Amino acid sequence: MSSRYTSNSWLNILKFPLGNRTAKPRNTGLTMIIDKGLGLGETRDLLNLAGEYIDYIKLGFGTSAFYAGEILEEKIDLVRSYNIEIYPGGTFLEVAVLQDKLEKYLDTVKILGFTAVEISDGTVAIDSNTRCRAISMAAEKGLNVLSEVGKKDPKYRTPLSELIKQVINDLEYGSQKVIVEGRESGVAVGLYDSQGKIIKTEMEELVSAVPDPSILIWEAPMKEQQQDLILRFGPNVNLGNINAHEVLALEALRVGLRADTLKSVCD
Amino acid sequence: MSSRYTSNSWLNILKFPLGNRTAKPRNTGLTMIIDKGLGLGETRDLLNLAGEYIDYIKLGFGTSAFYAGEILEEKIDLVRSYNIEIYPGGTFLEVAVLQDKLEKYLDTVKILGFTAVEISDGTVAIDSNTRCRAISMAAEKGLNVLSEVGKKDPKYRTPLSELIKQVINDLEYGSQKVIVEGRESGVAVGLYDSQGKIIKTEMEELVSAVPDPSILIWEAPMKEQQQDLILRFGPNVNLGNINAHEVLALEALRVGLRADTLKSVCD
Amino acid sequence: MSSRYTSNSWLNILKFPLGNRTAKPRNTGLTMIIDKGLGLGETRDLLNLAGEYIDYIKLGFGTSAFYAGEILEEKIDLVRSYNIEIYPGGTFLEVAVLQDKLEKYLDTVKILGFTAVEISDGTVAIDSNTRCRAISMAAEKGLNVLSEVGKKDPKYRTPLSELIKQVINDLEYGSQKVIVEGRESGVAVGLYDSQGKIIKTEMEELVSAVPDPSILIWEAPMKEQQQDLILRFGPNVNLGNINAHEVLALEALRVGLRADTLKSVCD
Repeated sequence: MSSRYTSNSWLNILKFPLGNRTAKPRNTGLTMIIDKGLGLGETRDLLNLAGEYIDYIKLGFGTSAFYAGEILEEKIDLVRSYNIEIYPGGTFLEVAVLQDKLEKYLDTVKILGFTAVEISDGTVAIDSNTRCRAISMAAEKGLNVLSEVGKKDPKYRTPLSELIKQVINDLEYGSQKVIVEGRESGVAVGLYDSQGKIIKTEMEELVSAVPDPSILIWEAPMKEQQQDLILRFGPNVNLGNINAHEVLALEALRVGLRADTLKSVCD
Repeated sequence: MSSRYTSNSWLNILKFPLGNRTAKPRNTGLTMIIDKGLGLGETRDLLNLAGEYIDYIKLGFGTSAFYAGEILEEKIDLVRSYNIEIYPGGTFLEVAVLQDKLEKYLDTVKILGFTAVEISDGTVAIDSNTRCRAISMAAEKGLNVLSEVGKKDPKYRTPLSELIKQVINDLEYGSQKVIVEGRESGVAVGLYDSQGKIIKTEMEELVSAVPDPSILIWEAPMKEQQQDLILRFGPNVNLGNINAHEVLALEALRVGLRADTLKSVCD
Repeated sequence: MSSRYTSNSWLNILKFPLGNRTAKPRNTGLTMIIDKGLGLGETRDLLNLAGEYIDYIKLGFGTSAFYAGEILEEKIDLVRSYNIEIYPGGTFLEVAVLQDKLEKYLDTVKILGFTAVEISDGTVAIDSNTRCRAISMAAEKGLNVLSEVGKKDPKYRTPLSELIKQVINDLEYGSQKVIVEGRESGVAVGLYDSQGKIIKTEMEELVSAVPDPSILIWEAPMKEQQQDLILRFGPNVNLGNINAHEVLALEALRVGLRADTLKSVCD
């Protein structure tokens, strides 16, 4: 083994085509994984390989309600040991508000060991007061607050002006980052059209209205979306709803070690 | 660890938006996984996490012919230890009939330790007599019989009236459940159109013709299909050809802890 | 366990519908996996189950630059212990040429323990001289050379006549096999149209121009592509960019133990 380069050093020969990728802990260039039910072994394997490239793990939807025995707690501890934030899907919060259990919900999130929480209203209508209360309450309890803007159902699209107002407001009340809804599919939701293409005019309007684009995390499950956002904002754009099996492929895309972004430096 | 809630109890705070989900062992609300070649480690990891939410594992197509060494036998034992039924893909039965090896095939299924068998004619034309003989022979040998209706190739669609006759007949001869063909893709097959949307008139006609909808297992690999079937039949509809990595996501969908079914209780 | 058949022997009852599948080590009937970042555990699990059906593993794109610690070296050793060739994605070579580091790159590939290398120009324009030099240099260093033809971007399609010339040339300079570009998606690239359907006239023209079709490896990530190629060239066509979780499903497809190829022997 001693005569070999190490995997990290062999790239010292080559320069990454797109440079200045941030390292952990970082405030920009974040990657958020959507986990739809990885077992403990699979999680360990993933973190071992690629923990350096993961900043947040979301246990998607209500999946964390179904973990057998102590597996949820073990998984939370494991993820935290890699300095990765972990939180349950936003659906829970919406159900909690619907059932008037907001504070109990936040306490449980905290007790279970989650480090962050998502405050969203993608499905359940939540009035502005409750939203602000949820954000500030979660922040006070020491949770890293990620709020989310955008509706999941294309029939109820939030007007852009209102969405912008919500972003500003959320940050004021204590959100660390604001997630732009993209769902698991990335199609016909938020700022994506029915083909999954980003609606550029709306994206630019949103970006120009916020203090700093790095406060946004773009849910971008499709490779084309990731590519477009990297080409627009650079290797250190914050991306979410990344498939667990795509972490290294995304990293390659970020730094230009994949055709779709490499070509941008060749033309 | 002692100060924490357990993953199961923390949801005691919240009520599942869609209630009355059945628990194992159950006769309705079944989830059947299509396994395209999970290794032993991956299988163990999955069962550990989500064994409570899996009722059947199908080793898809002819994949079980290619397991190295003793892995097939070990996997069968492992799956059975979680009280989950396991069976080889229906293609084998069709090949066996084609090669006039029906009984030898069923004996081998039994000897290998499989607990169930699929009797289908999705690809090979099997006359009604042979089908009945296969079902009753398998049942007599102590195998849990799942028969399947519907052709895999859209060029040879079974007329609905004949399909209904087949369901009734299969049950008479010993089928425990009848699977409605959806393939791995869910597109342009059985009761799904070329977009994967369920053809509702045909579905309703089929359902009204059978003694009890719970004798049907719907192959529904796409989330939209699962959602439509849950919204139509409730959380305890029998669903099949579920991707192994989607078990907990499906469970969330069943009980309303995912946007697509949660919204049904919000409107 | 002693009273049971083994998984290999139980199929002795049945004949594979499509016969004469080659066994390892083989020169035709090759399966090349695209690995987008499997952890060590997952890799071990896969090889344990299906190592007999894998001939090449490509660590896709630049993913191998991001393996933590010694994991890359451990994985290379593991893969080699199953008599499987392993190589980094072609993007690296293109970046190396762009940065005038060709020989250093090839040396590093060799030192890290990779057994093969891909010489491609899917993204970066590489003149014919440099391409020949890269192929012969890699071959001299004892690497198994896979060259690739076809552009990744549909805007820059290589004319078929030039592509044919390249194949002939590559073989002369030392390529073992020539890969026909299909990307990870299989859509609107190389010989695939915007639906992912193979353009048959072009395929036939290419095949008729090469000394032996078995020198080609077809990147065919979609099942329909695999099926069409198996139906055209038989079970032992060389296929690439196969998803790691589809190895056994592909094997079933090759031998007619899956509906899509089984039906060819039924009609």
